[in-house]
Amino acid sequence: MLRLAVVGHLARTSGDFNLSDMAGGAGRMDVLCRCVSASFFLSHEFRRDVECFLVLLGEPDTPKIIRFSGEHLRYLSPDERSAGSLIKKALSIPVGTEFRESTPGVTVRRGGVSDIVKEYPFAVLDEGGTDIRTVDTLPDSYILSDHLDFTPPEMDLLAGKERFSVGPCALHANHAITVLHNEIDRRRAGW
Amino acid sequence: MLRLAVVGHLARTSGDFNLSDMAGGAGRMDVLCRCVSASFFLSHEFRRDVECFLVLLGEPDTPKIIRFSGEHLRYLSPDERSAGSLIKKALSIPVGTEFRESTPGVTVRRGGVSDIVKEYPFAVLDEGGTDIRTVDTLPDSYILSDHLDFTPPEMDLLAGKERFSVGPCALHANHAITVLHNEIDRRRAGW
Repeated sequence: MLRLAVVGHLARTSGDFNLSDMAGGAGRMDVLCRCVSASFFLSHEFRRDVECFLVLLGEPDTPKIIRFSGEHLRYLSPDERSAGSLIKKALSIPVGTEFRESTPGVTVRRGGVSDIVKEYPFAVLDEGGTDIRTVDTLPDSYILSDHLDFTPPEMDLLAGKERFSVGPCALHANHAITVLHNEIDRRRAGW
Repeated sequence: MLRLAVVGHLARTSGDFNLSDMAGGAGRMDVLCRCVSASFFLSHEFRRDVECFLVLLGEPDTPKIIRFSGEHLRYLSPDERSAGSLIKKALSIPVGTEFRESTPGVTVRRGGVSDIVKEYPFAVLDEGGTDIRTVDTLPDSYILSDHLDFTPPEMDLLAGKERFSVGPCALHANHAITVLHNEIDRRRAGW
């Protein structure tokens, strides 16, 4: 099981955003949609052994965590609007601190970075870390940030965690997920 | 200069498609939009030394080639709608067999796979090729297909060309571009 968490610093936390304005009024929800797509899609298959968490820290009902579980996930297509539509539905139901299902394989709860880092042993994926190609055993849980850097309070929460980099250039979060998957795919296949 | 060409087998060839239905009525234009984004975006920079060609083979005015030139490209954001909007504009102007600019860095002409493979020495990027990590010198021009396989006539046009693979799993075209970029980034940076 590979577990990925992406922090959306401005991402809207209610379902009232417009699917045609995800890069604007929805707080760069487009970035998170691309991360969902990168987490799960192969060309003709679906990565069932992945969980993708979106940690949404924007207005008006912050913070919330949406979990996409590959094992049960349905109705997801690779395009941004498809992921956006499932996120919109998740953000439209009343939630407490326990995960509640909005559509098959998509669950939502209240919670932020401080909650999720207590629950899973995340490594941090960012450009300052150790090259993933040089590591004997890669972790199975990673947290990464959207188009903005982790804030100082988030850095405090992540202090002491292992840090890994996918390459010499700072990449968009979805591209980093794709490169990480490639490294794991190669190891599993004995390439 | 890295040159990427993506064949969109069903991609609409007029600008009358709906940006909110790119995965449907526009003939999986969403796939091509993600390829454009993967071709050019770094986290805080733009890959100016890239050209991305979209070869559009759908109705109603097939075939057309749109060229995104990183050196001159403007008005492109990473989201699908942004690339879709530039494609829509390119497909809305009258064209002949010479490239004509629709927006800065975006040009369009009539032409198909048989034309573009005569003009550039493309290698083929697909899952059956040689692992890119094992090659001493990587080519600088690649052609790849959208969500559909190359057709038998296209395979004939591509016969005898070098073939490269980015990993053991068949990936979406945009993900393959991201992994290829990562390998090239690493070589350039001496990683």
